[in-house]
Amino acid sequence: MQSKSFSIGIDIGGTNTAYGIVNRRGEIQEQDRFHTTDYNTPEKFVAALYAKLAPHIAQLDQEAINGIGVGAPNANYYTGEVRLAPNLPWRGVIPLRHLLEEAFGLPVTITNDANATAIGEMTYGSARGMRDFLVVTLGTGVGSGFVANGQLIYGHDGFAGELGHIIAVRDGRPCGCGRNGCLETYASATGIVKTAKAYLEQADQDQVQIEGPGTEDWLIPVWRNTGEVSSSGIHKAALAGDPAAAEIFEFTGKILGQALADAVAITSPEAIILFGGLAKAGDFILKPTKLHMEKNMLAVFQNKIDIVPSGLSERDAAILGAAALAW
Amino acid sequence: MQSKSFSIGIDIGGTNTAYGIVNRRGEIQEQDRFHTTDYNTPEKFVAALYAKLAPHIAQLDQEAINGIGVGAPNANYYTGEVRLAPNLPWRGVIPLRHLLEEAFGLPVTITNDANATAIGEMTYGSARGMRDFLVVTLGTGVGSGFVANGQLIYGHDGFAGELGHIIAVRDGRPCGCGRNGCLETYASATGIVKTAKAYLEQADQDQVQIEGPGTEDWLIPVWRNTGEVSSSGIHKAALAGDPAAAEIFEFTGKILGQALADAVAITSPEAIILFGGLAKAGDFILKPTKLHMEKNMLAVFQNKIDIVPSGLSERDAAILGAAALAW
Repeated sequence: MQSKSFSIGIDIGGTNTAYGIVNRRGEIQEQDRFHTTDYNTPEKFVAALYAKLAPHIAQLDQEAINGIGVGAPNANYYTGEVRLAPNLPWRGVIPLRHLLEEAFGLPVTITNDANATAIGEMTYGSARGMRDFLVVTLGTGVGSGFVANGQLIYGHDGFAGELGHIIAVRDGRPCGCGRNGCLETYASATGIVKTAKAYLEQADQDQVQIEGPGTEDWLIPVWRNTGEVSSSGIHKAALAGDPAAAEIFEFTGKILGQALADAVAITSPEAIILFGGLAKAGDFILKPTKLHMEKNMLAVFQNKIDIVPSGLSERDAAILGAAALAW
Repeated sequence: MQSKSFSIGIDIGGTNTAYGIVNRRGEIQEQDRFHTTDYNTPEKFVAALYAKLAPHIAQLDQEAINGIGVGAPNANYYTGEVRLAPNLPWRGVIPLRHLLEEAFGLPVTITNDANATAIGEMTYGSARGMRDFLVVTLGTGVGSGFVANGQLIYGHDGFAGELGHIIAVRDGRPCGCGRNGCLETYASATGIVKTAKAYLEQADQDQVQIEGPGTEDWLIPVWRNTGEVSSSGIHKAALAGDPAAAEIFEFTGKILGQALADAVAITSPEAIILFGGLAKAGDFILKPTKLHMEKNMLAVFQNKIDIVPSGLSERDAAILGAAALAW
């Protein structure tokens, strides 16, 4: 029998929660995901998580498990709390580490989801061997994990890396955090949908007509038929050659690139790793982001900083990073 | 005889250069300053610096001197070069470390002036005992030194901390760096003068009249008499109760506070230390900066981050920080 051979990585997102049992070589033994939004209190959420994991833990023997690492929005490494997370279904201050330790009887380490992803990228992904880099997660919200001198930067009270809440557009769109113009209201999966809706409402108002072959996936006809638009729908339309989708990605990349240029001025990273739903659009988002980052960057940084997609599957990176926290 | 008891700290600014010989207890033995702008090439500058320091070095015995530390705009810790510094009188890439080592025959360490100041504040000033803080220098330009986990963050290639070149106002004022809207075009000693000139030209156009007692230091009459305005003149006017000067500080503090709120989101510091010419205006600049930083900050950071003036004299901080580099 090997003792302390496994740790549990849990990635709590605004929409989904993913978890996995990971061995010391970084191999995920068991994993699954479920909707975070199915649970209206953190207590119910933790109880459900325990119910899902308990059979696996029992099978391995609790003694073999080193601990639990958790990545969650606004989770604080120092206090073990999740505070005022605008993208989670639960309000206020949640003693997440305490709730999990009570339920599981195992030591728990928490940090925000982007920090967990940064640890995952550094250990197993695109940032292997790098000592200074930035991971930007483009999911329901926008997060970031900032590594300097090979160390994750938590800041004085554990909240460093809130790149999603720098003001990208002064007096811009309202944000879940109560302010206006935050980067995540533009450059997240939900942000790009807001941009697309504004674009499509304008197209309706201007009575823009769409012609030609192969337009069934294009945004304007889909919007007129269904009244709906999604992040993956925008990507699908871009793949089908829709110029509207390309314009929407261009706008999104411009806002993101401008914000990254500012982040570079402060942190001087070797590379920026883009992760999460929106990053899956590949060059549709990477190209305009890179273009506008370069255009807005101080000369000393130009043409030196790679923007690279994550080297890990979305599900794995956060689980692996969270699990790595527990070792 | 004590060997290696001293180091030389040199602070090269856009306007002035200050130097000092510092002992291990951080006491400055000899110091002086001169105009950087008197020398139109870096070679002439280094020769002049050597001529000024050589008698002091001879008196102490060269063997007693551990080395030279230099803080200079855009100086790179890794390469020893100053690259493309918009605020220095010399263009292009300057092999500053090499030039100084050739002249002095002593080991030289260089970093940017703001990083040197941050080391000075951490060792002897307002940041003693802090592990996560930001020093922002408000001089001819705006610089910053960013310390996390007790370490100065140089970034991947030594250029971290260029807070002066985050875009504070999109498509704003032209900057010496070739871009537009950089923080330093607003929140430096030169930036506040630009703000004042725009304000005073508008006042002339609007034919604003100034009445009442004690207005001789006020900006509008001084401007109309002399056609000139300076950073210290704005401070003087504010002290004399000039509402125009107060408005100019309010505007400057607003731009600076907004930028600091974004820097806080990325770095989560314990405190921000303001240093340099503009910081000498005390509450005139500190109050609006703090107000607008708080207004623009994510809830998790509010009312937790001090903005404090430097704990060192302007001349001493950079010399001490530069000298500390050499130990």
